Amino acid sequence: MNVWLQENSWDEVEVLKEKSGGVIVIPVGSTEQHGSHLPLGTDTMVAMMLAEDAAKKTGIPVAPPLWFGWSPHHMVLPGTITLRPEVLIEVLYDVIESLSKHGFQKFVVINGHRIVNIPWMQISAERAQRVLGVKVVLFDPAYMSKEIVPQLGYGPVGHSEEIETSHMLYKHPHLVHLEKAQDNPVQKHELYSVDPAYPGDTLCYVPSTIKDMHKSVDAAGGTTGIPSKSSKEKGQIYHDHVVDNLVKVIERLKI
Amino acid sequence: MNVWLQENSWDEVEVLKEKSGGVIVIPVGSTEQHGSHLPLGTDTMVAMMLAEDAAKKTGIPVAPPLWFGWSPHHMVLPGTITLRPEVLIEVLYDVIESLSKHGFQKFVVINGHRIVNIPWMQISAERAQRVLGVKVVLFDPAYMSKEIVPQLGYGPVGHSEEIETSHMLYKHPHLVHLEKAQDNPVQKHELYSVDPAYPGDTLCYVPSTIKDMHKSVDAAGGTTGIPSKSSKEKGQIYHDHVVDNLVKVIERLKI
Amino acid sequence: MNVWLQENSWDEVEVLKEKSGGVIVIPVGSTEQHGSHLPLGTDTMVAMMLAEDAAKKTGIPVAPPLWFGWSPHHMVLPGTITLRPEVLIEVLYDVIESLSKHGFQKFVVINGHRIVNIPWMQISAERAQRVLGVKVVLFDPAYMSKEIVPQLGYGPVGHSEEIETSHMLYKHPHLVHLEKAQDNPVQKHELYSVDPAYPGDTLCYVPSTIKDMHKSVDAAGGTTGIPSKSSKEKGQIYHDHVVDNLVKVIERLKI
Amino acid sequence: MNVWLQENSWDEVEVLKEKSGGVIVIPVGSTEQHGSHLPLGTDTMVAMMLAEDAAKKTGIPVAPPLWFGWSPHHMVLPGTITLRPEVLIEVLYDVIESLSKHGFQKFVVINGHRIVNIPWMQISAERAQRVLGVKVVLFDPAYMSKEIVPQLGYGPVGHSEEIETSHMLYKHPHLVHLEKAQDNPVQKHELYSVDPAYPGDTLCYVPSTIKDMHKSVDAAGGTTGIPSKSSKEKGQIYHDHVVDNLVKVIERLKI
Amino acid sequence: MNVWLQENSWDEVEVLKEKSGGVIVIPVGSTEQHGSHLPLGTDTMVAMMLAEDAAKKTGIPVAPPLWFGWSPHHMVLPGTITLRPEVLIEVLYDVIESLSKHGFQKFVVINGHRIVNIPWMQISAERAQRVLGVKVVLFDPAYMSKEIVPQLGYGPVGHSEEIETSHMLYKHPHLVHLEKAQDNPVQKHELYSVDPAYPGDTLCYVPSTIKDMHKSVDAAGGTTGIPSKSSKEKGQIYHDHVVDNLVKVIERLKI
Amino acid sequence: MNVWLQENSWDEVEVLKEKSGGVIVIPVGSTEQHGSHLPLGTDTMVAMMLAEDAAKKTGIPVAPPLWFGWSPHHMVLPGTITLRPEVLIEVLYDVIESLSKHGFQKFVVINGHRIVNIPWMQISAERAQRVLGVKVVLFDPAYMSKEIVPQLGYGPVGHSEEIETSHMLYKHPHLVHLEKAQDNPVQKHELYSVDPAYPGDTLCYVPSTIKDMHKSVDAAGGTTGIPSKSSKEKGQIYHDHVVDNLVKVIERLKI
Repeated sequence: MNVWLQENSWDEVEVLKEKSGGVIVIPVGSTEQHGSHLPLGTDTMVAMMLAEDAAKKTGIPVAPPLWFGWSPHHMVLPGTITLRPEVLIEVLYDVIESLSKHGFQKFVVINGHRIVNIPWMQISAERAQRVLGVKVVLFDPAYMSKEIVPQLGYGPVGHSEEIETSHMLYKHPHLVHLEKAQDNPVQKHELYSVDPAYPGDTLCYVPSTIKDMHKSVDAAGGTTGIPSKSSKEKGQIYHDHVVDNLVKVIERLKI
Repeated sequence: MNVWLQENSWDEVEVLKEKSGGVIVIPVGSTEQHGSHLPLGTDTMVAMMLAEDAAKKTGIPVAPPLWFGWSPHHMVLPGTITLRPEVLIEVLYDVIESLSKHGFQKFVVINGHRIVNIPWMQISAERAQRVLGVKVVLFDPAYMSKEIVPQLGYGPVGHSEEIETSHMLYKHPHLVHLEKAQDNPVQKHELYSVDPAYPGDTLCYVPSTIKDMHKSVDAAGGTTGIPSKSSKEKGQIYHDHVVDNLVKVIERLKI
Repeated sequence: MNVWLQENSWDEVEVLKEKSGGVIVIPVGSTEQHGSHLPLGTDTMVAMMLAEDAAKKTGIPVAPPLWFGWSPHHMVLPGTITLRPEVLIEVLYDVIESLSKHGFQKFVVINGHRIVNIPWMQISAERAQRVLGVKVVLFDPAYMSKEIVPQLGYGPVGHSEEIETSHMLYKHPHLVHLEKAQDNPVQKHELYSVDPAYPGDTLCYVPSTIKDMHKSVDAAGGTTGIPSKSSKEKGQIYHDHVVDNLVKVIERLKI
Repeated sequence: MNVWLQENSWDEVEVLKEKSGGVIVIPVGSTEQHGSHLPLGTDTMVAMMLAEDAAKKTGIPVAPPLWFGWSPHHMVLPGTITLRPEVLIEVLYDVIESLSKHGFQKFVVINGHRIVNIPWMQISAERAQRVLGVKVVLFDPAYMSKEIVPQLGYGPVGHSEEIETSHMLYKHPHLVHLEKAQDNPVQKHELYSVDPAYPGDTLCYVPSTIKDMHKSVDAAGGTTGIPSKSSKEKGQIYHDHVVDNLVKVIERLKI
Repeated sequence: MNVWLQENSWDEVEVLKEKSGGVIVIPVGSTEQHGSHLPLGTDTMVAMMLAEDAAKKTGIPVAPPLWFGWSPHHMVLPGTITLRPEVLIEVLYDVIESLSKHGFQKFVVINGHRIVNIPWMQISAERAQRVLGVKVVLFDPAYMSKEIVPQLGYGPVGHSEEIETSHMLYKHPHLVHLEKAQDNPVQKHELYSVDPAYPGDTLCYVPSTIKDMHKSVDAAGGTTGIPSKSSKEKGQIYHDHVVDNLVKVIERLKI
Repeated sequence: MNVWLQENSWDEVEVLKEKSGGVIVIPVGSTEQHGSHLPLGTDTMVAMMLAEDAAKKTGIPVAPPLWFGWSPHHMVLPGTITLRPEVLIEVLYDVIESLSKHGFQKFVVINGHRIVNIPWMQISAERAQRVLGVKVVLFDPAYMSKEIVPQLGYGPVGHSEEIETSHMLYKHPHLVHLEKAQDNPVQKHELYSVDPAYPGDTLCYVPSTIKDMHKSVDAAGGTTGIPSKSSKEKGQIYHDHVVDNLVKVIERLKI
C-alpha cells in the first residue's frame, strides 16, 4: 500500500478513504537552518517520516507535505524560508476544506517544526472544526515525547539538538554531517523555557528576534543543545515512541 | 500614582513614561461564561488586577484593558463574546504600535484568559518585535503558577475552578456567588490535557467544538474543576505569587 | 440591578435578556489626548456613563466598553492609541455577531468619540444588519445634543472643550484638572466645520494630519474650545439631555 | 482644454499638471435605482458634471469617474450595483496613490452619491493623507447646498427628489422622464433624518435594510421627496451654487 | 434602445433584462499612457466601443465601464492609474454579484487592456462562477483578433501600435494625434513574446518592471509597434471582426 | 551535488548560492485528479523533475516543491486539493521574499499545473519584482513545448493526455497505470481552446465549473486527450526539449 495521497490516482484514493475511517494525516514542517550538521528540511522530513510509518500501521493516507512553516527567527541564516502565519492559517484551512469535501472528516496535523507552528495551526484547526464540522487534532513530537526524552538521557528541547539529530540519523543518515555538529547546551533562564515539559513558572513562547538569534548563531552556528550525544539507536527508540503515540491517536479517531 | 493610562492626561503620561523605563503592561482577557458563580468578565478582571498591583509596585503604566478575547467554544452559553483571532492579532498590534510611537518599547501582555488567547498573541507579538523593533513578552497566569498551584492543594487548570474562584474571592468577592458553584472534577484523558503543567505526552490544544462543550455544560453549567475548594486566603497567596513573577519580569525589562 | 454584562454570570444574563426586549448597548470610545485637564479615556468614559444611566432606567444590559477608537490625528500627543478603522469594523461586527447568537437583536452603539468613530461604525452596522438580520443604531452625543448645547451657552464642538469638560466634571470630577485647562476658541473656516450642527455649506470631515495637529497642539496643548466656561451643573443638564434621548431610542427599540 | 484625464495623452497630462497647482478632481458616484424618472447613473453624472464645470473654470484635470459606490439598500430595485465599502476604500486609495506618484498632491473627491459614500471615503482619505503625505478633501453636494436648497423652496434630502431631478433636468434632460416621477414627501421621524442640514438631535446614518427599503419602494417606486416641484431653472441655480463652492475649494488648494 | 445600464431607469432595466436572455456585458479597461498619440483612456474606450456595438446588435445591456485596470509598468509615465490586482478581483466580483441578484446570470467581461488584466479577471470569474452559480466569459480583443491581424498586414501586439491606433482612428479620431506617433517595431526575443498568437516556445507574461519600461519609453515615448501603419479603414475592419466575434459569443450565451 | 535546498545545510546553501549567480528554481504543481492512470501529484512531479534536471546541468539550487495549486474544477474527483488563488499569491510571495533576503535575486517559477496556476503566479511575480527588486520568470511546460508537441504527433493540451502520460512514463513509470487510461479526444469548440498554441480567435481561459466537469468526468474518468498514444521514448524527447529551454532560461539569468 502506498500511503502518500499524491502517489495514488483518484480511484485508489476512494479505496484508501473507505479503509481510513475518514482519517487522514497532514505533515507540516519548515525549511529552516538546522545548524551545519542537519539539512534545512529536517522539520518537514520529521513530520513525513512519523506520518508515513503511522499511516502504514493504520492503513490511512497521508497528504502531500507542506515544506514551509513559520520561521521568522531562523531567517538569520541562509536557506530559511518563512511564511507569514496569517498565510499558513489559510493554507492549512484550504487543504482541510478540500479533503473534507471528498469525505475525510478527521485530520491529524503533524507539526515537525515544534512549538513555532502551533499558534497558526490552532487558529486554522478551530476554524475548520467550527465551519466545516470536522475534527482536527494537532500532533507535535515535542509534546509527544515528554516521557521518552529524559529516559534517553537527552536534555530539553533546543534546536538541531540530540533529539532531532538522533531522529535524522535513524531515518536519513546520509543527510546528517555529525562531524560538523557543534554543542551548545541549553541555558537556563529564570521564568523562561521553550521546552513543553518545563515544570517551572514561565513566560509564553514568542519567536526570538533576529538580533537575539545572532547571539546563538555566533555561539554554535544555529544549534542549541548537545548533538554530540546523538545516536541512531536512540533515534529509533524516540521515533518508535512517537509513532506509537501517533498510532494511538489515529486508532482512536477511526472509531 | 494612578497607573491606568486612561485616567491620566497626556502630560501625566509623559511623566509616567520617564519613570517606566519604557515598559508598559497591556491587560487582555475575555467576556465569556464562567459558570453560574463567576461573572463573564472574570478573565479580564484577572488580567487587570494582576496588572494593577504589579504596576503599582514597579511604577509603570497599564493600558486600558481589552475586554474581548478568543472564546469560540464558550459561545455555548449566553453573554459570551468572541472575536476572530485574525482580528485580535490586529487589535493588539495596533495598540503596541501606537504606544511604541510614544516611546514605549517593552510590552508585557497579560493574558487573563489562559491558553486560548496565546496563539493570536504570539503571532501579534512576533510581528510587533520584527516590524516595530520593540520587545513583547506574554504573561499568562496559568503558566506563571505552575509552582504554586500544587502547593495550594489545587488541581489542574479547568474553567471557573478553584484557582479562578479563589482569585476572584480575594479581589472581587461581591461578584462571586459561591453558593451557585458546581463541582466538576477535571477528567483525565490519555494523551490530552489543557494544563500547561501536564507532565505526560499530549496533543496540542485546540478550542473545543460547541458540540463537545454542550457535554461539559450539561455536567456542571460551564464549570470544570472543584470551585468548592476555593478560599479567599488561597486566592491571595495565588495572587501574590503571580504578581511577584510579574514584578520580576517587569523589573528585568526596565533595565 | 447590575447593568454591566461583564459583572453578571451567564444565567443572570439570561434574565437580563428577557427583560431587555432584545436590546443591548455597546459603549465605544477612544484612548486619546484630551488636553492637560482631561484624562485620555474621556471618550470611553463618556460612552460608559451615558450607557450606564440609560440602561438603569430601561432595564437593559451594557456590553463591556471598547477603550480603543480611530484616533490617527491625536497620535500627535503621548498616550493616544489608535486602531485602524478596518480593524475596528471587524471588532464591532464580531461583538454584535456574538451577542446576536445569544438572542440580542437590537444594538445601540454609543460613540463617545464624536464624529471620528462614525465612519467605521456605519460600515460595521450596515454589514451586521444585512448579514445577521439585526437592527443597529448609532448614538453619538455630538449629534444628540445639537438642541441643548446652544441653550447652555456653549460653542461648537471642539476637543476637550466646555461640553466634554462639564460632562466629566459632573461624573468624574477627580479626573479633571480644570486649573490646567487652556482656552482655544474654535476658529471659523469658510466651508468647513467639525460641528454636526453647522448650518452652512461645508466639506466633509477627514481626520487632520499630524502636521496640522501640531499647530493646534502648540496653541493650547491639544484643546480646542473654551473649557474655562465649564461647570458641573451644566454638565449634569447636558448629561440628562443626552440620556433622555438615549432612553427614548432604547424604549422605541424595545417595542 | 479637455479636462478629462482619460482623453489626454501622457504629455498633455504633464502640461495640465503644471497648470493645476497639483490639484486634481476625482468624481465618484454610484449606479443605483433613482425612481422611474431618473437614470441609474444619476449620482455619477452629478459628480461628473460638477467636476467638469469647476475644472474648466480652474484649469485642473478630472480623473475618470468611478461609476460604482456603496448602495446596499438600493439593491432592492433592478440595475443597482454595490461594492463593499472595504473594497471602495482600496480603490480610491490606489487611484490617489497612482496620481500622487505623478506629482498630484491635492485631491478633491466629489461624492455624487450623498452621505452614503462618505464613510469609506473618510477612511480612504485619512490613510492617503497619512501614508502618502497628500491632501484630500471630500466634496459632497448635499453638504455643499445646505444654504441654497431652502432658498429654492426645496425640501430636505431624499432620493431622486426635486434637487436631484432639477439638477439632471438642467444637464441631462433627455435622461429624465418627469412624467413617470412619483411624489413621496420626506417624512419626519423623531431623532432621525438623513438631511445634513437637519438642526435637531439625531441618530447617525446607517443604510437602511432591504426590508425597510421595500416599504419606501412600495410607496413611490424608489423615490423620496417631491420631484414634481423640479425645474430646469432651479437646477441651474443649484448647479451654479455648488460649482461656485467647488471652485472656491479648488482655488484655495491651488495656492 | 439605450444599451448603457447607467442611462436607463430601473424599470427600463427590467425590460432590457427580459430581452437579454440574462446576458450582460461589463467593459473594463485602464487609464494608462498610450504614447503621445493616443489618450490615456484608450483601453477603456476600446472595451466600451466593442461592448456598445455588439450590445446594440444583440439587444443586451452594458454595465458602466471600469476605467481602472492593472497597469504597474505604465506608471513610468504620467497620468497612469493602477489598481492592485487583489482589489480589482473584488471590484469585478461585486459588480457581478450585484447584477446576479437582479437576475443577470451570464456575463461577458470585455478586457480592453489586453493580457495584463486577464489574471485578476480569471480569479474573479472563477469565484463568481463557483459561488454565485453564474457563467462568466472573458473576451479580450488581442485573443479575438489573432486571425484578422495578419490579414491587415499588422504586426504582433505591442502598445499603442497600429492595431490600437487604427481602432481609435475609426471611433475616436479627434482623440488621436497621429502626427505625434513614434514607430518602435516589436523586437524579437528568444523564448518570449507578449503576443497571444506567438507560435514558438515562450515564458509566461509578467508585467515589466519600471526599470525595464524606462528603456522602451526612452526609445519611443511609450509606444511599441508601428503606429505609422495605422488607418481608419483597417480600424473599421478590425473593429467589425472583433464585434462579430463578440456577437457570436453573446448569441450563444443567450440560448 | 544535491540541488534540493531542503537536503542541504545552511552552509552548503551558501556555497550553492555563490555558484548559482543568484538564480534559484521554485517548482509548483498541484494535487489533483489525473484520471485513473496517473497519480494525483503528477503536476508537482512534473515541475520537480524538470527543475531537478535543469538545476543539475546549471549548478543552481531548487526550493522545496509546493504540492498545492489552484484546482477548483478538479474538486469533482476525490483526492484533489485546491488552495484559493488569493492564498497562493501570498505563499509564493513569501517564499520569494525569504530567499531574496538570503541573496537570491532571480527566480524561475516552474508551473507543472499548466495554465491554471499562471494567473496567481503573475500577480505574485509582479509584486515581488516591484517590491523586492528581484527578477521573476514563469516557466510553464505547456508554453515551452509548443514547438515539440506537434513534432511528436501529439494533440492539443488536455488533461492527463499523451503528453503528461508520456512524461510520467519516462520518469515515474511505476506510478503510471496505462492499462486504466481512457481516451477522450480533445473536442474543438468555436472561439475556445485551452491550448496555448491554439492559432484561432479565442476566449480567455476560466476554470470550468464543477457541473461542466461532471460531463468530462463521465466521458473518461477525468482524462481529456489520447493517453493510449503515450510512450516512454516520446516522454524523454519531450522532457529533454523542455529541460533544454529551462537550461537556456537559467543560463541567461545567471549572467
